[in-house]
Amino acid sequence: MRHRKATRKQPEFPSYFPALWPAMLAVRFVDESEARKEFAMPADNRPLEDRLRAIEDRLEILNLIASHPPSADTGADYYARAVYAEDGVIDLGGGKAANGNEAIAAIMTAPGHRAAIAGGLAHFAGLPHIALDGDRAVVTSYLQILTPHPSAEPVEVPNHGSSKGFRIHRVGANRWELVRTPAGWKIKRRTLRPLDGSEPAREILRHALAPFAAKT
Amino acid sequence: MRHRKATRKQPEFPSYFPALWPAMLAVRFVDESEARKEFAMPADNRPLEDRLRAIEDRLEILNLIASHPPSADTGADYYARAVYAEDGVIDLGGGKAANGNEAIAAIMTAPGHRAAIAGGLAHFAGLPHIALDGDRAVVTSYLQILTPHPSAEPVEVPNHGSSKGFRIHRVGANRWELVRTPAGWKIKRRTLRPLDGSEPAREILRHALAPFAAKT
Amino acid sequence: MRHRKATRKQPEFPSYFPALWPAMLAVRFVDESEARKEFAMPADNRPLEDRLRAIEDRLEILNLIASHPPSADTGADYYARAVYAEDGVIDLGGGKAANGNEAIAAIMTAPGHRAAIAGGLAHFAGLPHIALDGDRAVVTSYLQILTPHPSAEPVEVPNHGSSKGFRIHRVGANRWELVRTPAGWKIKRRTLRPLDGSEPAREILRHALAPFAAKT
Repeated sequence: MRHRKATRKQPEFPSYFPALWPAMLAVRFVDESEARKEFAMPADNRPLEDRLRAIEDRLEILNLIASHPPSADTGADYYARAVYAEDGVIDLGGGKAANGNEAIAAIMTAPGHRAAIAGGLAHFAGLPHIALDGDRAVVTSYLQILTPHPSAEPVEVPNHGSSKGFRIHRVGANRWELVRTPAGWKIKRRTLRPLDGSEPAREILRHALAPFAAKT
Repeated sequence: MRHRKATRKQPEFPSYFPALWPAMLAVRFVDESEARKEFAMPADNRPLEDRLRAIEDRLEILNLIASHPPSADTGADYYARAVYAEDGVIDLGGGKAANGNEAIAAIMTAPGHRAAIAGGLAHFAGLPHIALDGDRAVVTSYLQILTPHPSAEPVEVPNHGSSKGFRIHRVGANRWELVRTPAGWKIKRRTLRPLDGSEPAREILRHALAPFAAKT
Repeated sequence: MRHRKATRKQPEFPSYFPALWPAMLAVRFVDESEARKEFAMPADNRPLEDRLRAIEDRLEILNLIASHPPSADTGADYYARAVYAEDGVIDLGGGKAANGNEAIAAIMTAPGHRAAIAGGLAHFAGLPHIALDGDRAVVTSYLQILTPHPSAEPVEVPNHGSSKGFRIHRVGANRWELVRTPAGWKIKRRTLRPLDGSEPAREILRHALAPFAAKT
């Protein structure tokens, strides 16, 4: 080991065994004499593949959550069938619930939902919080359900035309319980509760705060 | 190859050729006898550089979409000039369109747009869906256009003061067609359609669902 | 160096010094004869660890911003105490401000804030723009503050029940000035200004456009 002052026992580095290199690189980075000099901070000691996978998981989950409003606003039963686990559950509050991806998909094509879409329906998703834990994840997100406001007076905004505007029909907190499968991340359970001052929505929201609670 | 039960033919590993290591590491990870033991799932076999680049692309695109509302609400012609391709197109529906980044930039400083900004204008972006395909990407996103509501009655919210509130003037679905250039991701075409129950917005939204349609 | 036409002087590659490999891999990728063939674009020459860390920073910051609404809507003083720097500042405009994480935490449990929560309160976060600069970051984000609209007429939406709807009490622009600490990213200063047509909010928003201004 030339050009180097070893500060701890170095693991052996079998160069003929490349499958372990990322893990070994990570171990090496923990050597503070090198890592701190280069990065001025403690290095991450998880294997490279784990770090990459966690990152890709988060980005895949962002896309999964981002695809929910388009599915709801187009009545896409094929989306629900594909992203809910076969035994997935949707619990929208007030006793409105469905069990199994087929039953959830059926909601999308129900006449009432089609009528809502025809009248103008927009599910508007806020920035989600993602708590990733290996092959499971819990996403906490806000949702607005918007519709045109036909009874309002039209208002003119310069350069943006005249519009009667839209109203916010519902505001809710979602908990998405996700699980990794060979076919990608799937929804095991989605729970939605109205943000109208009642406790159940707050219980959902507190999940995003759990890591901070632990640090206190 | 010691300490290892080879389950398939291993590719040769020319250690004098480091430019190929990421690709070779990936190939090695596919060896299930090792990878599954460590990660309990099939490993990703794309080269490391490709994975990193795709991740960085997504994060750069998130920032690009996040910078649209600030540009619209400050009338930033320099933003439009920089992020639209020279032959970029903006198609806002109802015949409101512009061709070329200079024409798009000119919208930002038009007197009507300045007047809207002076009256209070907020473009509010929902969570975007990103479909990345090499040097191209399509982003599907929701947008609210908000303005103060001067004709409404003021309402007092405890600890949050009194306000006449804001109204939602428009809700729309965006399709952003992006292309990678040496100067970063640029917008080739942005299409906006109102979410008022009409079909064109739903056509835009369905793009985010394409991968799920394929899985069915 | 077989199977290769060197187009520039290659750095030496000391295989006994794995802590430097990611950096060296990056250097190698700059060799255009190889990199362009594989990726058809110039390769990134930052060390791997730097790239991974920047990516993880962005995702951690997304989660930090996403956890703000849940904290405000549940009155979570422990969140404020944990994520604000000890000398952190919150400046909500109109003279409403607090210095130090303990004072900021105290806002969360004030009777007025508790009353707002009991009446139904939803902080709704738009897509944030993240400007990362080593151990510092500035986030620019939009925020809606929503409450139920008890004086409105109930409206029935097919399949979505009847609701008096929600009103947008405030729309604001946030600047979050963050700093990396051994305990994760912390908030040094949060500044909120109303998007009511006044200049201070636009000054905040322009921060997200700075990189585009530079490119012009």
